[in-house]
Amino acid sequence: MSRYVYVNGAYLKKGAAQMPIEDRGLLFGDAVYEVIHFSHDFFVDAAAHFERLDRSLGELSIEKPYASHASLLHKIRYLKRCNQIDEGFVYMQISRGIAPRNHLFPDDPKPSFFMLMKHHPLSPFVSKKIRTERDGRWHRCDIKTTNLLPNVLAKQSAFEKGLFDTWGVTDDGMVTEGALSNAWIVKKGALYTAPKTCNILGGITRMRLIKLATEMKISVAEKSFSCDDLYQADEAFSSSSNNVVVPITHADNKKIGTGKPGPISEKLYAAYLAFVEKGVCLARNS
Amino acid sequence: MSRYVYVNGAYLKKGAAQMPIEDRGLLFGDAVYEVIHFSHDFFVDAAAHFERLDRSLGELSIEKPYASHASLLHKIRYLKRCNQIDEGFVYMQISRGIAPRNHLFPDDPKPSFFMLMKHHPLSPFVSKKIRTERDGRWHRCDIKTTNLLPNVLAKQSAFEKGLFDTWGVTDDGMVTEGALSNAWIVKKGALYTAPKTCNILGGITRMRLIKLATEMKISVAEKSFSCDDLYQADEAFSSSSNNVVVPITHADNKKIGTGKPGPISEKLYAAYLAFVEKGVCLARNS
Repeated sequence: MSRYVYVNGAYLKKGAAQMPIEDRGLLFGDAVYEVIHFSHDFFVDAAAHFERLDRSLGELSIEKPYASHASLLHKIRYLKRCNQIDEGFVYMQISRGIAPRNHLFPDDPKPSFFMLMKHHPLSPFVSKKIRTERDGRWHRCDIKTTNLLPNVLAKQSAFEKGLFDTWGVTDDGMVTEGALSNAWIVKKGALYTAPKTCNILGGITRMRLIKLATEMKISVAEKSFSCDDLYQADEAFSSSSNNVVVPITHADNKKIGTGKPGPISEKLYAAYLAFVEKGVCLARNS
Repeated sequence: MSRYVYVNGAYLKKGAAQMPIEDRGLLFGDAVYEVIHFSHDFFVDAAAHFERLDRSLGELSIEKPYASHASLLHKIRYLKRCNQIDEGFVYMQISRGIAPRNHLFPDDPKPSFFMLMKHHPLSPFVSKKIRTERDGRWHRCDIKTTNLLPNVLAKQSAFEKGLFDTWGVTDDGMVTEGALSNAWIVKKGALYTAPKTCNILGGITRMRLIKLATEMKISVAEKSFSCDDLYQADEAFSSSSNNVVVPITHADNKKIGTGKPGPISEKLYAAYLAFVEKGVCLARNS
């Protein structure tokens, strides 16, 4: 974990980094966040992460605490130098600001902004098992907010059953996403993942995998699939910035396909790693 | 607002009160809270608030940071003396604790606990207008957590339309509750309020009003009502610890009953004030 963190313009030792108790992030979860993976000087899909951050802030009418994406990236690079981390992620959180507790937006709030970093190589390609459960989250899962208690409970309940994750299922039986990842299946060589609606977060890795799959002439449908589709799929996997592609070999104690990581999942994982590798080279030579 | 706050065992000047940025309340909204109104030495329905706090903590497997309700009340009384507030409320927030960011519960976490106070006399009996909207919150509204962004947005969207509040409505058209209050109607002399399910927070003032109404021989049904029931009601009001009974004279631009505060709402408001007055006297003489 980072030794240095960024808090409202200052670069501080982590132990000294605090937030007033009247920060609306603490009182209401009135805050948004982003996580960007980096390898050397390459910040993976940083532009897309920044655009999503802008969108999250916009949806909640929280003021941007940065002048531009370039100035934000400058701060992140400086923090990376302070921490001397080669590979890992930066976590950014922005709340509406600090004000006496009142549900109503404060007048003229000044957003609180902090960032921390962690050493974290991209995860290896290792198979996992998941469970499904009714997705009981709120109706705006498309905004990346810190109202994450349902996600925490979904991840924890899987862990307590010896599983990697819980995938959400709508009342009409369609799979939404994991606690902190998007959900995918492969059926007859084609990829399926839920469309971007208010039910899922539009993952940046999801978007990148769609591009990579398309380049490799793998058919991709942004189309919801049911639990039965999942059980009968040839392959399944989850995608996220830190874990890239995690092959899911069992769901609800049912074997998916052969019960082993599938070839298309592996191809996508390799393609993503090659994309990052290329990004690292380009950043080094720029 | 309080000059002194309580943070993890210490009584601090408010300006000095901070929480590490890795507090799970800040990162995940992994925290619960309570608000208790007090008048002089009477903490209104403190036992019921403490029981609900125990329940919220229990539902989320967060350890209690107090040995007993008596020791908790002792801390609150001390904070009240520090702040020299006669009438107002205490806000208590307890998170799972501080740990490097990970959705999974940390091993052996030590909960973070802070309290602040505000001078706030019980609200006068003043009529308000509300709107209704699809209740898009998560599926465990019965737990008093700090995942309050939907409530913030509901309150704010009402405010921006010149209204007091937004009442939630389920997909099948039944009214749940306000952004920070329970919802009630009166029809042919009888009270209706949604039953205690995962769709609403079991309000302590709601519970007290049910008792007071029953004592006054007013019939009470803990039974969901629809938007149409609301529009056709004789009276409507919301209840909460700080605002007690707020008569709602208009909903979705439709006049409720006569369009003026109703007699049963007023009777309940008066009965609640008498109950608090009696509590103040008993506390003074004990």
